[in-house]
Amino acid sequence: ATAFRASEHQHIRYNPLQDEWVLVSAHRMKRPWQGQVEPPLLKTVPRHDPHNPLCPGATRANGEVNPYYDGTFLFDNDFPALQPDAPSPGPSDHPLFQAEAARGVCKVMCFHPWSDVTLPLMSVPEIRTVVDAWASVTEELGAQYPWVQIFENKGAMMGCSNPHPHCQVWASSFLPDIAQREERSQRAYQSQHGEPLLMEYGHEELLRRERLVLTSEHWLVLVPFWAVWPFQTLLLPRRHVRRLPELTPAERDDLASIMKKLLTKYDNLFETSFPYSMGWHGAPTGSEAGANWDHWQLHAHYYPPLLRSATIRKFMVGYEMLAQAQRDLTPEQAAERLRMLPEVHYCLGQK
Amino acid sequence: ATAFRASEHQHIRYNPLQDEWVLVSAHRMKRPWQGQVEPPLLKTVPRHDPHNPLCPGATRANGEVNPYYDGTFLFDNDFPALQPDAPSPGPSDHPLFQAEAARGVCKVMCFHPWSDVTLPLMSVPEIRTVVDAWASVTEELGAQYPWVQIFENKGAMMGCSNPHPHCQVWASSFLPDIAQREERSQRAYQSQHGEPLLMEYGHEELLRRERLVLTSEHWLVLVPFWAVWPFQTLLLPRRHVRRLPELTPAERDDLASIMKKLLTKYDNLFETSFPYSMGWHGAPTGSEAGANWDHWQLHAHYYPPLLRSATIRKFMVGYEMLAQAQRDLTPEQAAERLRMLPEVHYCLGQK
Ligand SMILES: O=P(O)(O)O[C@H]1O[C@H](CO)[C@@H](O)[C@H](O)[C@H]1O
Ligand SMILES: O=P(O)(O)O[C@H]1O[C@H](CO)[C@@H](O)[C@H](O)[C@H]1O
Repeated sequence: ATAFRASEHQHIRYNPLQDEWVLVSAHRMKRPWQGQVEPPLLKTVPRHDPHNPLCPGATRANGEVNPYYDGTFLFDNDFPALQPDAPSPGPSDHPLFQAEAARGVCKVMCFHPWSDVTLPLMSVPEIRTVVDAWASVTEELGAQYPWVQIFENKGAMMGCSNPHPHCQVWASSFLPDIAQREERSQRAYQSQHGEPLLMEYGHEELLRRERLVLTSEHWLVLVPFWAVWPFQTLLLPRRHVRRLPELTPAERDDLASIMKKLLTKYDNLFETSFPYSMGWHGAPTGSEAGANWDHWQLHAHYYPPLLRSATIRKFMVGYEMLAQAQRDLTPEQAAERLRMLPEVHYCLGQK
Repeated sequence: ATAFRASEHQHIRYNPLQDEWVLVSAHRMKRPWQGQVEPPLLKTVPRHDPHNPLCPGATRANGEVNPYYDGTFLFDNDFPALQPDAPSPGPSDHPLFQAEAARGVCKVMCFHPWSDVTLPLMSVPEIRTVVDAWASVTEELGAQYPWVQIFENKGAMMGCSNPHPHCQVWASSFLPDIAQREERSQRAYQSQHGEPLLMEYGHEELLRRERLVLTSEHWLVLVPFWAVWPFQTLLLPRRHVRRLPELTPAERDDLASIMKKLLTKYDNLFETSFPYSMGWHGAPTGSEAGANWDHWQLHAHYYPPLLRSATIRKFMVGYEMLAQAQRDLTPEQAAERLRMLPEVHYCLGQK
């Protein structure tokens, strides 16, 4: 019998955090690509555009004028998917027709006053102010809402409609689907094994090493064993931390630094401003924040779509939408490629 | 208190088939779109291109020459994600690092000898031969494999790399993730309520009517109450049918006819060759095919990405990837728009 090699032989892997399987078919990278190629990036974003509603001094859709901010800037999304006062749909009349009330707020957070930078091009102290702003908004909205979802859609490919560096924060009166899954999995793991799932997972990955991308005094970045997107990563604190506001000043500085390194590697991979969606997951907040959430470990997921080059992405379509996620290189191969890349940004190092 | 209106007030809805929630925020359609616009379609696909490996008489990557087929044509995918003989990764050494063997086959099915047609432009008898081919391949591969996933990726936006009308068939030694979810939900519903979930659901939708798109003697098409994609639909037989091969000749003819109508409406919506991924789900097959699968009802899901026009799609990114699916118009609004559209194709009717 042939010996199993993950890079040659398809197999399925289990995601214990989100209770899902992925099909790993690494031999598929040999397939030539004749499908859609993404439009190349518009290279020239002006540093300041008075008509861009995210810029300092600009007027937004609701008539408000932005301050001349010089760090981060948080404001209410003018077209929010969640509003604080929606009435309830009332009781369901049939088990197959269940609707429930959803309330919340949607905010936008600018990372920097300039439109022509991205996180990896910002300085570590500038990124540190973003980390602090993430912690504060979690605290502020978490006082009322059980879930505060911070996420960044970067790049037009990820539906981002404004090049100004920013993220979004959607706080909701309900625990969203994926939060519920992670809650169930982490709770079950803790009760079965007596420690938090992601603490044990980080610990094991530090021993195994083959999926590590970056390590620092307080943080780890790795391609999870069950990654779905080609260059997906998981960013984890080494210490048991449930939510962003609990991070110490040293952990925040170190987070800013490791984020800069990771995002620099991402940009260097295909020498492009690497698109992704990323977001933070921590223990639920709101009125139940005081309950025991020790099974939770704070983490960020990075989901980048590119597969082969700056313009060739992975399509999560047919089989993936109807049956199961499928990936075309192993997580170990992805981690190795990311590990090898320089920590100096290709736009900055070539002088 | 304000009265609840689904088209004005965001709320969450439950998908009992796949055990997931969706956030419905219909007021968000008011938001102007400044993000990525898809490239317009290449209009001219030649009817026959000897270099296109899907065409009759063409030579494929492995050197095989296609027959001069004149109906459907089924062959092995030259770059399969699943191969019949992959060795097993062996036992897992840790509960967080679980991998399992995956075996299977991947086939490609051409719908028609011409590259410049799509299903809605084919005749009902031609579509009927596709239905028969789907039933046969389910029977053939289902003899060995527990899951036979038939799916069509249509359009470059859906990762389809060849304009020739075709679908794929991936049969696997394992029950894929989404099949497992549907299995669990349908089994639980049957044991609690004494009838198949989708039989009861179709029955209710026929009474409520507001989400129906098309009905025929043997079939229903509706926008499910829990639809995620803007114009997602569910295609259901009226009779309790577990798998494609069980369809009677009359049901097959009627399926061909209702598919033509649905896909014509889709093309008419934005006057474009409407992209989507679609696929069939039926009771598991393989060695357990003889067990009791009466809780299963055969169905097809259509997942089309377009939201606002032929070039503006819904991006399922940040919040959707990290928290929960979100939609920008209600399923009832989508159903109404689809219902109103003519059943004559915009390319055929304008003479
Ligand atoms: O097999 P194809 O058509 O080359 O590939 C397409 O469909 C597959 C199955 O949904 C996906 O895994 C690929 O990402 C997509 O590009
Ligand atoms: O809010 P934005 O940036 O306009 O919109 C973007 O992110 C949202 C949250 O992930 C998505 O629902 C939209 O489809 C996407 O285009």
